[in-house]
Amino acid sequence: MTDFTKTRARFRLPDGVIYLDGNSLGPLPAAAAERVGRTLEEEWGRQLIRGWNSAGWMTQPRSVGDRIARLVGAPAGSVVVGDTLSIKVYQALAAALAFNPGRKVILSDSGNFPTDLYMAEGLIATLGQGHRLKVVEPEAVEGAIGDDVAVLMLTEVDYRTGRLHDMAALTARAHAAGALTVWDLAHSAGALPVDLLGSGADFAAGCTYKYLNGGPGAPAFIYVAPRHADTALPALSGWMGHEAPFAFDRSYRAGQGVERMRVGTPPVIALAALEAALDVWDGVDMAAVRRASIALCDLFITLVEAECPELELASPRDGACRGSQVSFRHPQGYAVMQALIDRGVIGDFRAPDVLRFGFAPLYIGADEVRAAVAVLRQVLDGRLWDRPDYHRKAAVT
Amino acid sequence: MTDFTKTRARFRLPDGVIYLDGNSLGPLPAAAAERVGRTLEEEWGRQLIRGWNSAGWMTQPRSVGDRIARLVGAPAGSVVVGDTLSIKVYQALAAALAFNPGRKVILSDSGNFPTDLYMAEGLIATLGQGHRLKVVEPEAVEGAIGDDVAVLMLTEVDYRTGRLHDMAALTARAHAAGALTVWDLAHSAGALPVDLLGSGADFAAGCTYKYLNGGPGAPAFIYVAPRHADTALPALSGWMGHEAPFAFDRSYRAGQGVERMRVGTPPVIALAALEAALDVWDGVDMAAVRRASIALCDLFITLVEAECPELELASPRDGACRGSQVSFRHPQGYAVMQALIDRGVIGDFRAPDVLRFGFAPLYIGADEVRAAVAVLRQVLDGRLWDRPDYHRKAAVT
Repeated sequence: MTDFTKTRARFRLPDGVIYLDGNSLGPLPAAAAERVGRTLEEEWGRQLIRGWNSAGWMTQPRSVGDRIARLVGAPAGSVVVGDTLSIKVYQALAAALAFNPGRKVILSDSGNFPTDLYMAEGLIATLGQGHRLKVVEPEAVEGAIGDDVAVLMLTEVDYRTGRLHDMAALTARAHAAGALTVWDLAHSAGALPVDLLGSGADFAAGCTYKYLNGGPGAPAFIYVAPRHADTALPALSGWMGHEAPFAFDRSYRAGQGVERMRVGTPPVIALAALEAALDVWDGVDMAAVRRASIALCDLFITLVEAECPELELASPRDGACRGSQVSFRHPQGYAVMQALIDRGVIGDFRAPDVLRFGFAPLYIGADEVRAAVAVLRQVLDGRLWDRPDYHRKAAVT
Repeated sequence: MTDFTKTRARFRLPDGVIYLDGNSLGPLPAAAAERVGRTLEEEWGRQLIRGWNSAGWMTQPRSVGDRIARLVGAPAGSVVVGDTLSIKVYQALAAALAFNPGRKVILSDSGNFPTDLYMAEGLIATLGQGHRLKVVEPEAVEGAIGDDVAVLMLTEVDYRTGRLHDMAALTARAHAAGALTVWDLAHSAGALPVDLLGSGADFAAGCTYKYLNGGPGAPAFIYVAPRHADTALPALSGWMGHEAPFAFDRSYRAGQGVERMRVGTPPVIALAALEAALDVWDGVDMAAVRRASIALCDLFITLVEAECPELELASPRDGACRGSQVSFRHPQGYAVMQALIDRGVIGDFRAPDVLRFGFAPLYIGADEVRAAVAVLRQVLDGRLWDRPDYHRKAAVT
């Protein structure tokens, strides 16, 4: 049984802050600074170049990948870490398209995070083979999986609304229609149980700085189904994905299995922070996280709807159809969020009018949910959001 | 005048070590651990998601890029930091090819670092337009720049021998033949003066973990000549290169200038270490670094040739034709290097028989050069390299 009192003690959260934005950037694990400091001073500082072997830097993308694999229902040896989610989506999509050369449609939905769509556009232009990105509404995805679809590329949890796709059902539907799947797990990994192997997903990618708490700009990960791992095209064929990087061959030969999806030199310092973050996950039962997450989200919805009827729910009401976040609409959403943040309740805003609140049971409990709603009520009661400076649009929200 | 006694005090080098491998991984700057710790504890820990604005994380790829620009002869606003060198080479090459659609040859040389060649192979396969990678010997490059060449892609300094290409002359020759240029500055940035703007280079990329001392796996940088910056194709078109990332548009619109070459979320923790490393470069005169580097390399060559005639010079003898490293050949090169490392003289080995020694005046002086040669003499005299365990090949050298 996961004891969330214990996981909670493993994070450093500032006093007076209720942090409901772990869906954007997870908080600092208590052990991260020491772990990173050790990598700098003892590994880099003392071992210098020898750290690539003696400190295990060279194999870390795979060993850290195995730790993430456990959290997303993937077998050991099927996940590697590195680069950014955008890059990993590009590789996954390129590899998936190469398996389906006779078809030209990449099907996605309007709930996908924009960078996935942008990377697909870039890949389509680079391929120059007349591929087409077809973007439909989330509820229209299933019906749009026709026999022209090469690849179904979706983010499992919608970043704005938290709406959860049925990965197993859509993957089965795609396969039945002769398409492959690429799943973006940005808002899934660490948020809810994912069953990559069981669902039959072909490729997946995710980031580690949201629910996994790896730190700002922490490296991404990529999953390749074992049945594809030795034949998938890396597209971004860098030396770390070569069969023998230190043979310094003139020609590329793809490495074994998922190793081929490695590209350049591993981000050692960032990986140290991620290791500290993954330590918190040791022994955590994802089913228990899911139960607690749904309970927190349900409580938040119940309280907001009872106490703040000005807000309109923008997330699925059924916890089974939702990730680990709840979104509400308010016409002055941006300013309301600024007022909340100033009062220590940190969520975020997505245009045009969405207030997003993420609930991570590892460090958030029912007391924080109640306190956050009370502050929200105060902000609305006093029109505390009606200060001019709350209405200036910041560059980043 | 650059005072190398002062720069030297800004690194932490282990006692008893003479570090001649800064051409592979620079040493730990003394201020890095504190700087990274501050980013973790004060920025990530306290500011949480707000750090993207309040701590400047979002604009760091550009601001750090400007600091590197000064060191490679590039104007402010022409360099951004992120990803790995492999990824940045891919973007540069894709953009260069798109400017020259009628031609199919990518010309490179056997002194290029393999990952550049591998990324080119991957791009060629993805483009599927019949491009061809032509790899000639370094001395044959100039003569091979024919009117079929779309892009000349070279690493300025050969990673094995230190041989230095004439960037200005080869760029002029390429332009005269109607080709564009992509320069890899992995062994140039921080090693010698580079004049990207003056040489007319079209694109360049480099890494920051060698002579710039940014740490293991530190992010790379890319340069786009100002005349191309608003029309270059990003290829890896991620959200951070979008004109308005936080508008969350469904379609990609390339950002202003070099910003379009950004891809995913910036690696904030790694950038903190790199910032500390770049602080050491403040006020350093690259011409003074070059003079000191040539003097150190010349001294090393003179002493080794006088005292260790078993070794054969594998680098250009003329300092003006060499980067900041010296390579020697020995039939038992691998084992000799293991014996040296065990005695505190850290260089590295490249197959089949090359011993590499890098000389970074920021933290290495003539005393270390003399001491290193004395240890080399001891190793050779006593056949100290003749231990069986020195002859096992490590995974990484």
